[in-house]
Amino acid sequence: MSFFITFEGIEGSGKTTQISRLAAHLRARGLEVVQTREPGGCPIADAIRAILLDAANTSLVSAAELLLYAAARAQHVEEVIRPALAKGRIVLCDRFTDATLAYQGFGRGLSLAQIENLNTLARGTTVPDLTLLFDLPVEVGLRRALKRIAGTSGPAEDRFEQESRQFHERIRLGYLTLAGQEPERFRLIHADADPEQVFAEVVTVVEQRLGQGGG
Amino acid sequence: MSFFITFEGIEGSGKTTQISRLAAHLRARGLEVVQTREPGGCPIADAIRAILLDAANTSLVSAAELLLYAAARAQHVEEVIRPALAKGRIVLCDRFTDATLAYQGFGRGLSLAQIENLNTLARGTTVPDLTLLFDLPVEVGLRRALKRIAGTSGPAEDRFEQESRQFHERIRLGYLTLAGQEPERFRLIHADADPEQVFAEVVTVVEQRLGQGGG
Repeated sequence: MSFFITFEGIEGSGKTTQISRLAAHLRARGLEVVQTREPGGCPIADAIRAILLDAANTSLVSAAELLLYAAARAQHVEEVIRPALAKGRIVLCDRFTDATLAYQGFGRGLSLAQIENLNTLARGTTVPDLTLLFDLPVEVGLRRALKRIAGTSGPAEDRFEQESRQFHERIRLGYLTLAGQEPERFRLIHADADPEQVFAEVVTVVEQRLGQGGG
Repeated sequence: MSFFITFEGIEGSGKTTQISRLAAHLRARGLEVVQTREPGGCPIADAIRAILLDAANTSLVSAAELLLYAAARAQHVEEVIRPALAKGRIVLCDRFTDATLAYQGFGRGLSLAQIENLNTLARGTTVPDLTLLFDLPVEVGLRRALKRIAGTSGPAEDRFEQESRQFHERIRLGYLTLAGQEPERFRLIHADADPEQVFAEVVTVVEQRLGQGGG
């Protein structure tokens, strides 16, 4: 039975760790799982990701950034996600269309209608069966994210300093708005708990939805 | 006086040679000219161009290709074309938005409305003052293009063989359709003549339009 689950949330929400744990858990149950992420997930999308990251501190304009995310997504959906679902696998994807709405739309103020149009072009009919939104206060997430990169080079920390606390508040509220618009697809995960408790919540939600059957 | 001229046409139409000649001609008249091309024209767009060319024979899906062209254009417009026009320069650009409509739309059958939407996002309000359409029979253009690449490596020739004569016919007709829709912006250049004669026609058209004043 194919099933497409996306993982969304602000920086430091712990979703990336939880994806790996969930993948291991589902595989131990004998299910076929594909774990992937955006932007990236296949060679062409990874090359686009390299431009996005390389250009982070240069002159990349916002429209070009938006179009590059969409291009990477289109390739990723067609080359990885859609074929995996066609083979009846469970696909776990770290960030997807909602991330673009939350970050570029609610965060940076680009047109939500324009982003939704690009999302539709990029994903086609491949819509998540379930989206786990890892929600927690911005100050907790940023503290965790800064701790994670402590000891690494300066630019990443600078990036967090550059992007204001208000920016991440807008992203969190954006995600919550999206969840409110599609309550059937979204499930809120209370990410401001210890990892074991968060994982238990993730497993409960996913097992319940898998029990109901997927796409 | 700023003026934005784009050069369009099928393979082998000779437009690239004519752009360089026109640039030299206008500079000799004391005008400030920026000569550029798409996809590319600045470092980020060149990196995107590299993905487009590198991926030509692999698995790049059509939606991702379309979005990459748009991303490169957005960056090129904002970083090169718009600033040059703001400084009162004449910008000569080898291929622009019409190329995407002609090749991906009329040629490959992707949605013209979707392409136009991406073109609008990428170019913003930066619309050519004049578009020179180098028109000639497809068999003449392809013969010239094959002659130009004779002696080079196989892949380029293979590409021409793969893409059928019919494909290029659709592109030519697409360009002529676009020209018919915007007769004020387009000027047809009869590219099936010797280069001197073509250049004389280009100079006549451009001088006339520059005399009328630009954007």
